[in-house]
Amino acid sequence: MSPVMRQQTSALEPTLARICSYHLGFTDERGDPSSAEGKLTRSALMMMAADGVGLRPEDMRCQAAAMELLHNSTLIHDDIIDGDELRRGRPAAWKVFGASLAILAGDAMQALGLQMVVDDPGPGRAEISSAFAKALGLVLSGQARELTVRLGPDTGIAEYDRIVEEKTSALLECALVTPALRAGTPEHVLAALRSAGRHLGLAFQIFNDVEDIWGDPTVTGKPVRSDILRRNPSFPVLAALSADTPASERLRRLWHADGTTAAHLQQMADLVEESGGRHTAERLSRNHLDSALEHLGQAELSRAASTELTALFDRIVHRS
Amino acid sequence: MSPVMRQQTSALEPTLARICSYHLGFTDERGDPSSAEGKLTRSALMMMAADGVGLRPEDMRCQAAAMELLHNSTLIHDDIIDGDELRRGRPAAWKVFGASLAILAGDAMQALGLQMVVDDPGPGRAEISSAFAKALGLVLSGQARELTVRLGPDTGIAEYDRIVEEKTSALLECALVTPALRAGTPEHVLAALRSAGRHLGLAFQIFNDVEDIWGDPTVTGKPVRSDILRRNPSFPVLAALSADTPASERLRRLWHADGTTAAHLQQMADLVEESGGRHTAERLSRNHLDSALEHLGQAELSRAASTELTALFDRIVHRS
Repeated sequence: MSPVMRQQTSALEPTLARICSYHLGFTDERGDPSSAEGKLTRSALMMMAADGVGLRPEDMRCQAAAMELLHNSTLIHDDIIDGDELRRGRPAAWKVFGASLAILAGDAMQALGLQMVVDDPGPGRAEISSAFAKALGLVLSGQARELTVRLGPDTGIAEYDRIVEEKTSALLECALVTPALRAGTPEHVLAALRSAGRHLGLAFQIFNDVEDIWGDPTVTGKPVRSDILRRNPSFPVLAALSADTPASERLRRLWHADGTTAAHLQQMADLVEESGGRHTAERLSRNHLDSALEHLGQAELSRAASTELTALFDRIVHRS
Repeated sequence: MSPVMRQQTSALEPTLARICSYHLGFTDERGDPSSAEGKLTRSALMMMAADGVGLRPEDMRCQAAAMELLHNSTLIHDDIIDGDELRRGRPAAWKVFGASLAILAGDAMQALGLQMVVDDPGPGRAEISSAFAKALGLVLSGQARELTVRLGPDTGIAEYDRIVEEKTSALLECALVTPALRAGTPEHVLAALRSAGRHLGLAFQIFNDVEDIWGDPTVTGKPVRSDILRRNPSFPVLAALSADTPASERLRRLWHADGTTAAHLQQMADLVEESGGRHTAERLSRNHLDSALEHLGQAELSRAASTELTALFDRIVHRS
């Protein structure tokens, strides 16, 4: 995937090319070669699904690269919005090049990603272009909802699911469905792949929330407990707050107070666990992964691709 | 155009819908109805060109609305980038809703605009989608160049033209050419329309630069002489700095000093005029407008549409 991404972004206006290349991990801050690329999860999903519907890699390479560009266009803006200073262990693009140019670089990746699918003349061009534009719109919608919706114990879990379905699942669904659109598979296959992507996104995001609290920061690449620190109601916290136990009551009080020391965070993490929030989250993530695999099994992909995708789904959720 | 824009943006996620509606002038800060819309120049160009190639308004309405959304996606981000607090006499969207949500709202307008053209099933769909994505990419490229290129008396004017061709002309060209793509007109018509849009953008931008220095702020809607204040090398300044006269030498010294009082700005404006910068700019803007009209004349549009477009070109350049 990387060669197509490199080639396409290097043709951008020089400053935008440099920022995109940095953000994508191809170069360092001085523009020298680097290898800090992301996991390219979405393009890997797309290429395996392509194999599963009988397409050749070259039939889908442009779309897979475009999908990574779209995904990264949302990440580069997201880092500005959240004030995140690190991305994959390096300074975020806006810290290196300033927010103004990082905004334009994100816009440029978005426009380029859509241009690549629009310009590719293969079968299903219109349907694929439409799926990409729609998925991008959903990601933006989910990001906006995340910034504005006040998640609480009452309305929390339904809203949480909706945000994740937009912010995380939409591109995963699009990655899985694009090869099927190109191959012209029947509607029930498309539906199965969409459901697989939806559940995969939920499984991933919920497990990600668990890792934020109890994971190893050297594996997640993020400071531990940033969700609790920011009072971001992640899934285990929502589940804990919804429980009707003395521990969840104590958690609620601490949550609404403004303690941010490591001891405070540890105490809240312990209360989330004591209220059953961790257990519920781990169980739900597992259930969503099971559902994702069940839908994948209904998508009539080749045996080899199904096996590969099954392993990839697991790696995506468990970040291994 | 507005009904389509309203309908499309109102279907966005509620917060994004509210910000887009505010930015587009449909509502005020509280969400109450307002009428502070822009001039919708690009959609007007597209609708007249559509008439000129024999299309009906309904054949092009979706594209015209999409074009305005793309244009506005660049404006909402541009205001953040430039720190501009006013847009059409009202607080810029980022001042009202914060930069984070304004970034997402710009992204959402961009994605929506492209989605609308991608989803429209009429003739020339692929070519039109491609033209839109390409034009948007050029605008972003021009914006990035403007932030990073140091315009000076030597390399200035060629670089200036390039920036304007990308930042301003690209969407005007796209607006004029889209109906021709839908109607399937021959290549020489497309070429004539592209050239008309290119020169129109240059004529507009150069005259705009003149107005920034000597225009009436109640007409331009912007604080007078902001280009000089920010040491933004606008066309009259570039032309003046390139002249080899005592006045241009004095201008150069003041330009590189940091005087920003009204008296400083007045003195620099006078030196730009004395060095011939205003005269050159006005002449060049007129020449570009003449060229734009000449190319328009070669586009074989209907007589009525040509007449209307001629008048619109003039209004666009002279903001009347």
